[in-house]
Amino acid sequence: MKLLPSPSPAARMVRGVTVVGTGVIGTSVALALRRAGVRVRLTDRDPEALAEAVRMGAGTALPATEVRADVVVVATPPSTVATVLADAQRRDLGAVYTDVASTKSRILAQAEQAGCDLATYVPGHPIAGHELSGPTAAHADMFDTRPWALCPQPATAPQALRAVATLVTLCGARPTILSAQAHDEVVAAVSHVPHLVSAALAAHFAAADEHTLSLAGKGLHDTTRIALGAPALWRDILQHNAHPIAAVLDAIVRDLTEAAKALRSTDQDALTDLLTRGNRGREHILDVLHPAP
Amino acid sequence: MKLLPSPSPAARMVRGVTVVGTGVIGTSVALALRRAGVRVRLTDRDPEALAEAVRMGAGTALPATEVRADVVVVATPPSTVATVLADAQRRDLGAVYTDVASTKSRILAQAEQAGCDLATYVPGHPIAGHELSGPTAAHADMFDTRPWALCPQPATAPQALRAVATLVTLCGARPTILSAQAHDEVVAAVSHVPHLVSAALAAHFAAADEHTLSLAGKGLHDTTRIALGAPALWRDILQHNAHPIAAVLDAIVRDLTEAAKALRSTDQDALTDLLTRGNRGREHILDVLHPAP
Repeated sequence: MKLLPSPSPAARMVRGVTVVGTGVIGTSVALALRRAGVRVRLTDRDPEALAEAVRMGAGTALPATEVRADVVVVATPPSTVATVLADAQRRDLGAVYTDVASTKSRILAQAEQAGCDLATYVPGHPIAGHELSGPTAAHADMFDTRPWALCPQPATAPQALRAVATLVTLCGARPTILSAQAHDEVVAAVSHVPHLVSAALAAHFAAADEHTLSLAGKGLHDTTRIALGAPALWRDILQHNAHPIAAVLDAIVRDLTEAAKALRSTDQDALTDLLTRGNRGREHILDVLHPAP
Repeated sequence: MKLLPSPSPAARMVRGVTVVGTGVIGTSVALALRRAGVRVRLTDRDPEALAEAVRMGAGTALPATEVRADVVVVATPPSTVATVLADAQRRDLGAVYTDVASTKSRILAQAEQAGCDLATYVPGHPIAGHELSGPTAAHADMFDTRPWALCPQPATAPQALRAVATLVTLCGARPTILSAQAHDEVVAAVSHVPHLVSAALAAHFAAADEHTLSLAGKGLHDTTRIALGAPALWRDILQHNAHPIAAVLDAIVRDLTEAAKALRSTDQDALTDLLTRGNRGREHILDVLHPAP
């Protein structure tokens, strides 16, 4: 994995972008690009979401007589990316294509199967987001200083990678190159499993009354924040990365099963071990997210 | 469960308080009481922690010729509360006693067994805290607007409950009356299990390299925040409330086991069900923590 140098002189490579899908991520990409002075065209199969994104200043609706973009960003749910990409390439909507879905290997396989041109497609995934969905939750600074994974393949044309890396930098993010498989394994652990665990924790309160929650505090608040993600989108994401997620989930389930057993048998060592490893893991997470100055 | 009315005219009942244990919670109680103009004496078996709390303005060291307090706050780990309480009552340190431990039933049983006077003891638990420990993490506004559980027993003298409720209000918190058993079940679900789940999630990164965490974001940050709690204190807390915690943990493990199975079998319905219940639970949590105006 490496970080690309800031390609600001190459910004001329990305003067016009078309964003397909004006949900929270697509609209945020559009707003970030508008902030950087890029001309943005928008399209969405839901006319209301499109109108809202236009109203927010994220760009103008893609005209019927299509304009060829420097980069086309496919910002639709994982299970639709390959189809939308194939359609966009067939209509020659742009010179270079990328997507923003949080899984990569299966989309790549589907894109290949759908006959997409892999030379002009750079699979991407901005590491940012919001538990709320739709264009109204979007904001221009969503990607500032965040990593943005790019997973070029052997077939990827170097100029396609340069153009997409430029787009990423224009959005304020840091392009991070890694393989699709490495991406999926890392994201299973740092994002998809935390989402499922947060959902399982919150699910315990699905039928809760005021009494049960009377003593809730910041711990429960923080651990369940991401459980508000849209179920249909998240089911789609989880199924697209099923096996890496299931493997990490097995490890968490094993630890929690051991903890329940330890509680019932007053086995002090098992609990201390889990809590100590939890401390160490949290310290590593803080080291990466808030590096010491 | 009910909220007591604000007992501000009764504030004269609590003019002098002794805090036993100057960790993060004890020192925060002391600072909050100092802010309200209460005279506070401090004691801790660790002279450095005591000196630090005094230096922070939390009060003065309890003199050898002891001063009888209106209320004595035992702010030591759960497994030590009954012993410390028995010792404080034997030395006649105050008129009324309370504690701040996050488990209640077992402490009550231990206090009874240790021969404590239950008429002057009101078990308590402020719903606030910090993943960091020690007096330096304390602050005066830690309990502002937060619930503070009080679990009076049949033996509790009404004036003892009134005095401790006054102390809670002076700290800026809302006294919330419930039984020790109800307290322990509620806190297992809203605090102790989230702690263990957060620890299990963070533990997955105990040996993580920079690569594995390269794509970490706010979701992992928030879900693992509380995993930084001190292992020895938390093991003590968890074992004191072992059975209610194990029961909730079983339900979470069941959901996560089903999720792993659903991912491997592409059973769409099981995942959608978990994610939807997660949404609903999160909405309930937000309703309680951030009620609509």
